[in-house]
Amino acid sequence: MLKVEKLLINYKTLEEFKKFKEYGLQELSMHEDLQENIIENDSESPFYGIYFGDKLVARMSLYRVDKKQDRYFDPQQDYLELWKLEVLPNYQRKGYGQALVEFAKSFALPIKTNPRIKSADFWSKMGFENVKYDVERDKGENPLVWYPNGVTEQHNETASA
Amino acid sequence: MLKVEKLLINYKTLEEFKKFKEYGLQELSMHEDLQENIIENDSESPFYGIYFGDKLVARMSLYRVDKKQDRYFDPQQDYLELWKLEVLPNYQRKGYGQALVEFAKSFALPIKTNPRIKSADFWSKMGFENVKYDVERDKGENPLVWYPNGVTEQHNETASA
Repeated sequence: MLKVEKLLINYKTLEEFKKFKEYGLQELSMHEDLQENIIENDSESPFYGIYFGDKLVARMSLYRVDKKQDRYFDPQQDYLELWKLEVLPNYQRKGYGQALVEFAKSFALPIKTNPRIKSADFWSKMGFENVKYDVERDKGENPLVWYPNGVTEQHNETASA
Repeated sequence: MLKVEKLLINYKTLEEFKKFKEYGLQELSMHEDLQENIIENDSESPFYGIYFGDKLVARMSLYRVDKKQDRYFDPQQDYLELWKLEVLPNYQRKGYGQALVEFAKSFALPIKTNPRIKSADFWSKMGFENVKYDVERDKGENPLVWYPNGVTEQHNETASA
């Protein structure tokens, strides 16, 4: 069994993040906030990860979006936005990605993500579906969603481009 | 002088789009809407492009976001969201990307984009700047913005992660 852990923000975690391709403004901002004592060492982060020994080999960011912002699900509700799901090259195809996604599903909330085009097969295997594209809402994104039981797609007048 | 044109949605344009790496749900949705007569041939699209002869070699999508949705600029105002800026491999480093961005700036509205990390030098040369990362607003994005004269960054209580 792979153990998914909530990642704490400290210099070790931030150093491990540099090995992942999708390193960006979020990580840089965490680093800055730590250096400037805006956040404490070992603060909670929106990241979850899996360790192999003491090495972080897979991670994702998971954020609970408030019902008021929900433009994807019916009935309108809190949902999880998932991003930066990534497994280090030597650890791929061993179930790490799947373990992270299953962990996200365990909250029993709908999930939205905006994956790279090439990962379509993985997401489809995980039960994620396309939404009807809406230019105002989705802009440059390719949203994929997962519906728990009883949840369907939200329809709104502005749908379609 | 490179001529930037608003692209019309027709089968020729959609076929040209397939040559670009960032082909996704937006393009698929336009194709479907055309086939199902939900939109007419030669409908307007949010895409602008540059042709070399009769070949589309560069493109971007540009969408005017309503003031009410603005969470980036002060004073709060309409702004342009720019995505899928891309120049075909054999036509890069010839000023096509710059011509598109300058076209976007000519509307004299603030611009927000979420570029690939590796394109940082290009965007910096174009005068784009980082914002202060805000997990609730920015999620997995690395927003870069361009401020016209008199416009600055919007500050809000939820800033920082």
